[in-house]
Amino acid sequence: MLRKKDFAAMTPPMGWNSWDCWATTVNEGQLLANAEYMEKNLKQFGWEYIVCDIQWSEPAPHPTAEDVYRHFPRLILDEYGRQMPAKTRFPSAAGGKGFAPIAQTIHEMGLKFGIHIMRGIPRQAVHEHLPVKGTAVTAEQVALPNSISCWNGDMYGLNPAVPEAQAYYDSIFELYASWGVDYVKVDDICNTNMYPNHPYSAEKEIEMIRHAIEKSGRSMVLSLSPGPAVIEKAWHLEKYANMWRITDDFWDDWKLLKGMFERCEVWQKHVSPGCWPDCDMLPMGRIGVGFGNERQSKFTFAEQRTMMTLWSIFRSPLMMGGNLPDCDEQTLSLLTNGEVLHLLQHAHGACQIDRTDTAAVWMSEDDEDGSLYVALFNLSDELQTVACPLEELGVSTIKAEVRDLWQKKNLGIVETELSAELPAHDAALLKLTIQ
Amino acid sequence: MLRKKDFAAMTPPMGWNSWDCWATTVNEGQLLANAEYMEKNLKQFGWEYIVCDIQWSEPAPHPTAEDVYRHFPRLILDEYGRQMPAKTRFPSAAGGKGFAPIAQTIHEMGLKFGIHIMRGIPRQAVHEHLPVKGTAVTAEQVALPNSISCWNGDMYGLNPAVPEAQAYYDSIFELYASWGVDYVKVDDICNTNMYPNHPYSAEKEIEMIRHAIEKSGRSMVLSLSPGPAVIEKAWHLEKYANMWRITDDFWDDWKLLKGMFERCEVWQKHVSPGCWPDCDMLPMGRIGVGFGNERQSKFTFAEQRTMMTLWSIFRSPLMMGGNLPDCDEQTLSLLTNGEVLHLLQHAHGACQIDRTDTAAVWMSEDDEDGSLYVALFNLSDELQTVACPLEELGVSTIKAEVRDLWQKKNLGIVETELSAELPAHDAALLKLTIQ
Amino acid sequence: MLRKKDFAAMTPPMGWNSWDCWATTVNEGQLLANAEYMEKNLKQFGWEYIVCDIQWSEPAPHPTAEDVYRHFPRLILDEYGRQMPAKTRFPSAAGGKGFAPIAQTIHEMGLKFGIHIMRGIPRQAVHEHLPVKGTAVTAEQVALPNSISCWNGDMYGLNPAVPEAQAYYDSIFELYASWGVDYVKVDDICNTNMYPNHPYSAEKEIEMIRHAIEKSGRSMVLSLSPGPAVIEKAWHLEKYANMWRITDDFWDDWKLLKGMFERCEVWQKHVSPGCWPDCDMLPMGRIGVGFGNERQSKFTFAEQRTMMTLWSIFRSPLMMGGNLPDCDEQTLSLLTNGEVLHLLQHAHGACQIDRTDTAAVWMSEDDEDGSLYVALFNLSDELQTVACPLEELGVSTIKAEVRDLWQKKNLGIVETELSAELPAHDAALLKLTIQ
Amino acid sequence: MLRKKDFAAMTPPMGWNSWDCWATTVNEGQLLANAEYMEKNLKQFGWEYIVCDIQWSEPAPHPTAEDVYRHFPRLILDEYGRQMPAKTRFPSAAGGKGFAPIAQTIHEMGLKFGIHIMRGIPRQAVHEHLPVKGTAVTAEQVALPNSISCWNGDMYGLNPAVPEAQAYYDSIFELYASWGVDYVKVDDICNTNMYPNHPYSAEKEIEMIRHAIEKSGRSMVLSLSPGPAVIEKAWHLEKYANMWRITDDFWDDWKLLKGMFERCEVWQKHVSPGCWPDCDMLPMGRIGVGFGNERQSKFTFAEQRTMMTLWSIFRSPLMMGGNLPDCDEQTLSLLTNGEVLHLLQHAHGACQIDRTDTAAVWMSEDDEDGSLYVALFNLSDELQTVACPLEELGVSTIKAEVRDLWQKKNLGIVETELSAELPAHDAALLKLTIQ
Repeated sequence: MLRKKDFAAMTPPMGWNSWDCWATTVNEGQLLANAEYMEKNLKQFGWEYIVCDIQWSEPAPHPTAEDVYRHFPRLILDEYGRQMPAKTRFPSAAGGKGFAPIAQTIHEMGLKFGIHIMRGIPRQAVHEHLPVKGTAVTAEQVALPNSISCWNGDMYGLNPAVPEAQAYYDSIFELYASWGVDYVKVDDICNTNMYPNHPYSAEKEIEMIRHAIEKSGRSMVLSLSPGPAVIEKAWHLEKYANMWRITDDFWDDWKLLKGMFERCEVWQKHVSPGCWPDCDMLPMGRIGVGFGNERQSKFTFAEQRTMMTLWSIFRSPLMMGGNLPDCDEQTLSLLTNGEVLHLLQHAHGACQIDRTDTAAVWMSEDDEDGSLYVALFNLSDELQTVACPLEELGVSTIKAEVRDLWQKKNLGIVETELSAELPAHDAALLKLTIQ
Repeated sequence: MLRKKDFAAMTPPMGWNSWDCWATTVNEGQLLANAEYMEKNLKQFGWEYIVCDIQWSEPAPHPTAEDVYRHFPRLILDEYGRQMPAKTRFPSAAGGKGFAPIAQTIHEMGLKFGIHIMRGIPRQAVHEHLPVKGTAVTAEQVALPNSISCWNGDMYGLNPAVPEAQAYYDSIFELYASWGVDYVKVDDICNTNMYPNHPYSAEKEIEMIRHAIEKSGRSMVLSLSPGPAVIEKAWHLEKYANMWRITDDFWDDWKLLKGMFERCEVWQKHVSPGCWPDCDMLPMGRIGVGFGNERQSKFTFAEQRTMMTLWSIFRSPLMMGGNLPDCDEQTLSLLTNGEVLHLLQHAHGACQIDRTDTAAVWMSEDDEDGSLYVALFNLSDELQTVACPLEELGVSTIKAEVRDLWQKKNLGIVETELSAELPAHDAALLKLTIQ
Repeated sequence: MLRKKDFAAMTPPMGWNSWDCWATTVNEGQLLANAEYMEKNLKQFGWEYIVCDIQWSEPAPHPTAEDVYRHFPRLILDEYGRQMPAKTRFPSAAGGKGFAPIAQTIHEMGLKFGIHIMRGIPRQAVHEHLPVKGTAVTAEQVALPNSISCWNGDMYGLNPAVPEAQAYYDSIFELYASWGVDYVKVDDICNTNMYPNHPYSAEKEIEMIRHAIEKSGRSMVLSLSPGPAVIEKAWHLEKYANMWRITDDFWDDWKLLKGMFERCEVWQKHVSPGCWPDCDMLPMGRIGVGFGNERQSKFTFAEQRTMMTLWSIFRSPLMMGGNLPDCDEQTLSLLTNGEVLHLLQHAHGACQIDRTDTAAVWMSEDDEDGSLYVALFNLSDELQTVACPLEELGVSTIKAEVRDLWQKKNLGIVETELSAELPAHDAALLKLTIQ
Repeated sequence: MLRKKDFAAMTPPMGWNSWDCWATTVNEGQLLANAEYMEKNLKQFGWEYIVCDIQWSEPAPHPTAEDVYRHFPRLILDEYGRQMPAKTRFPSAAGGKGFAPIAQTIHEMGLKFGIHIMRGIPRQAVHEHLPVKGTAVTAEQVALPNSISCWNGDMYGLNPAVPEAQAYYDSIFELYASWGVDYVKVDDICNTNMYPNHPYSAEKEIEMIRHAIEKSGRSMVLSLSPGPAVIEKAWHLEKYANMWRITDDFWDDWKLLKGMFERCEVWQKHVSPGCWPDCDMLPMGRIGVGFGNERQSKFTFAEQRTMMTLWSIFRSPLMMGGNLPDCDEQTLSLLTNGEVLHLLQHAHGACQIDRTDTAAVWMSEDDEDGSLYVALFNLSDELQTVACPLEELGVSTIKAEVRDLWQKKNLGIVETELSAELPAHDAALLKLTIQ
């Protein structure tokens, strides 16, 4: 009984997203440079999406300390109020070609192309009374005046009570399909607790978007932001979306990384093909440029390994945040460990075995050969040994052959208990072949 | 140590407000008809304000079952983005005269004139980039894109971090002063719990408005809506405003009226000259016309007496909601009981003596002769006797001469206990002269 | 990778519980009368548990309008502070035999026996400083003075920081195993939001109880109350318990039944063998006797069918609340529809297809033959037709043979859409064989 | 219209409380040593209360890192379940004399004596079924099994629905009156948000206690703890109590002190004779001994001056927490500044003029000569000048003669603006004589 949406994202999507490094300012050259790097260095490990994040229709983005978005910028819209890439930043979009040329270039590299949108219709279209394509109405008739984002001023939400609201979503997904878009990250829609006093119904907008994708005739991954998604609505997200953020924006801060263990704990039963609770982008390497806060990730290497280990065993989508052409060797090594990425793509049943304030243990099982994966995490600020009795894994055996996937070495036969001495904030990822 | 604001509203304001009857649709003829009725029938009892409620700059208001406001109407603005009365509804406003002619007419009757505004600046002014009077900036530079009302789509909040935001408020109060406005009801600003996820600071906007009033050089009563106001901010409201709503919109529904007893209980210590916690308009007589729900108030006469008694002893502002020219005799009798209104204007120290689910007792003290007022309320759905021992009033005497203010008759000497047999939802208001 | 707990309750438990009819007052005769009725009339349909609910150690329970529990009763305890059945009510318990004789009688009927306990240790044991079996400590050393139930005064919670707390739980489950108990309903432990200001850790007490069951050497179903369970802890409940209440106490009130649709919606992804979110007892037939409120269930027959349909397709445990010997024919017919109960025991993947304020649709799939079940619910107060397009079921076919399980008749071939005309609050349960 | 309660605490109570230094362990010698020090050094400045804090009936208090209270200790009770001072700690209590001898000694010094109690009746009395004095009932009949403190295990709350509950309170206040108690600090009763799921009604217990005081025939100050009190109940506290804590326990931590500015802001309108919102004890000097954490207050001298300034201008009760005989000169200087304490006792109308994250300004007015007090606070972590324009004080004058009360020197004539250069966390307190 497969639903149509299930054919997209049958394994956790892997790619690069422009936000962590370029914020609202990414341009065509940067997108393509990342695509080229991915083609050469990462594609063979399963990385495939190049995603252009927010405000590509803003011709002159100018983040400041006050706000990453200009107030009331004049966006580039077509005659139907649909956002178009700003030529100032994406020259190939000239002549109304939109993102089609960039998508084509990326497809020719064997990669896929994704874009970001905010739910709703541009306020500018509403106040200019632009027509909704394929209908007799104008924008102000499908918009809800009080349905806005609390952090970005571009859009009004669409009114589910008005049939032409669906037509507007249909019109933009028709456009994205015509460009060759493979992945759409829809924002201001995932955390349905965000607007308690609103007429806005996130559920209805999600459903309208799913229908628009289906009508477009093109398979597109549907990714929802921002988090934290609401666990009571897990069933709805699983039904209509492919990935949804389970956290607020994630950055290179140990407190946030440690907090992710609680979020994964809560969401562990909701991971399945086509349904990926999303731990957000990986802020590794060179980031923060577009925010005026350029830096190498403040995460230590141990923390980055912990992040990659948790995301992989939990099966979060993996979206690299740092600018790929600037990757150093160490960062690259974390992105290209085939044995770890095999787990991401080919294990199931991941669950938390234990979590305290200072340590966590997760396990999952290989789809193909039934071997087990066990991740040991040191969440404390000091060197310590983290252990897990074999019986906690629910196996009756007393012996297993163990391989360390990050060290890429066999550790021999283990009886009764797995353990690893781990520096502060570090992790080990072990593969067990039961004897 | 009087602050300037204290010279306005030294007693609870009394008047008529257009909302309960006319919603967004009131026009010049209706305003003046109410003023004329007030001049003839109510003025001698202290009634003086005629207040024009929301959206007087909307040329074609059209409440529907869905929403009392049209979505994205084209408002009448002057060249500085200031709302002007729509000539379609207020013919005397033609030629840029605004509300000056209406104010003058009302003043000539010996009455005062009030208007409603939403906090902020019209979205229309922002998206049209209109200049802010007296500054070098345009509207989009002083507005906050995410600071909106959750129930009306006309405005953006002003950004307290930008000095020209104060200039905008100055420009509108300068205009209102020039028109001769005596009372301003500022909306979407009082319940500071309404927008928990907002960049919006209600406190700052209230302060900006107070400063604008002071700069205008004209004394105007500052009334804040909607409620419920937040008790933690009582000190701020007392410092900057003259009245503030302590409830959400109040209508002719016993449940709401019964609920008001709890609200008055909470706010009883925050009533003083210039500082009037506001129980909202009196939905008596003919109401609901502008909502497409014309009716005589659903309150029974007993309930109306309870309402008038509570508002009066608590010293809420009294703003009649029903259309005055349609007043019947009984309604008029409630508005013209001089002894009751004397209490409203000349008593102090009102406090709740007792409240249960079925009854309440309040008392206050006359400023002039030290006599006491006691209100007895039957909150149950059946006839019952409500009583109050004299010792609960804190008086050491054992005797008092009692007068019933609604019945206008003396009850003689009472010892040890006051009591009244009251029909369901009815009230008695007694004046005690201590022997 | 089966955990031990999984061998209990591989299908949703079905039985009778004493609470809805007898409250705190059930006695040996009533328990056995229900067991005999079950053996004769229900056993062949899968009903098997007879569960004795709260306060069986209270010798003289006396519910009043104020409180269903006496304050500070003297409970029957053994020398280790363990509650024992009161001989006044359970004569066979004399001589320290506890529930063993009753369990044996029930087992001889081919049925199973369950009991209720509150988490913790009797306050009486604590204030009398009774020893904890197998340890050198006394009761006050393992109890937490501030960990109590907010609705029953018998117990103190156990202190997870003290090792002998586990010993106390071990001592009671050892006793229950010796009696032959098959099912334990642990109360005051499931809704972990109930005690926000507490030192009490529900999770730890649940884990201690699971360990005590494992140590006891007897398989017992672990049922947790009261609800609503907290969805964020679903993973923990699935790991340690067999059933957990997803609602507060459920009674014969349409509002509560309608509300269950939202609860089932939220929990739909957390149903699996050994893991049964629990909609609570079925208040059908003769109930309320022990509360001094004897009555026939206030549910209409339509409402009872709706309840049975929802519980069955969702796969809630089925615990009859009415006194079985008093069952009328109609009630019995709802408990003995083999085709409906087959669905309860042998379908999977139940999910909500649609829910509005007036209707709901659920589906699931037969484990054995792959046929589909569709339940149509009329949640409105009027007769209406509830429909579901076949394409909403995710099947590509356009035809299905349909059987109505409550009416026990074949409806023939259906194309494109299922539908049923349903009286207010009624339901239809259909089985589809895809053509 | 004075109520009886008003005759107690007509100015903010000043005294010493045993908690901050001795926790649960204070003894007779320590109480009297503090009284003697007070008589000699502080009495002339208005200090008068010696208050014995919690658990004086616990014979062997033994605070640990886990809990400051032993679990289930055996308290000293009389035959009516009333707590009696433990002779192990208060030898003069021998022979059933209770606190009478200590009270007498303290009275002979010209000082007053206070004690702490928890609301309710000892659990020990309940489980031992002790009689309630003057009634035919026993303790378990007046107690509520689910009404307990969340932080101390000694008591059950009293059941307001049972008339004999009042009798129990009457019996203890009769006893306290017979001892000569002048001040009672009732705990676990003030923060009525603490027990959201409770049958417990704090309001009713407060009223019972007030009535018991009135019946006792002795004037006693009624002090309620712990905080934060709930501002919605301010009217009730003002009616029944003399002081109530507006914070959770206050300790020598700058964050807590800085937080007090917000609490004083909220409560500023609720200070009047007999009604003193309470900022909690002054943790100055030698504290923490009874907690096993002996120390000199971690507050800097500047912070202590800020604390004394805020408490004084706000008119909080002043209860010294440090052990008086160990006072150093500097601490003593803060407790004996007559000009500052004059403000505490003889000013009114205190209000906050301004508060930001880095500074605050308060003012009040002298009852006697109408001069103004202005307190300037540096809440930042760096030296800064804090200023206040004279016009913010609401005075029309442009000149004032200024005296610095902490420095005890005249600063001459000030025009237009007051200001002070203040080290981090320091304060200035100025007296203004308007010219």
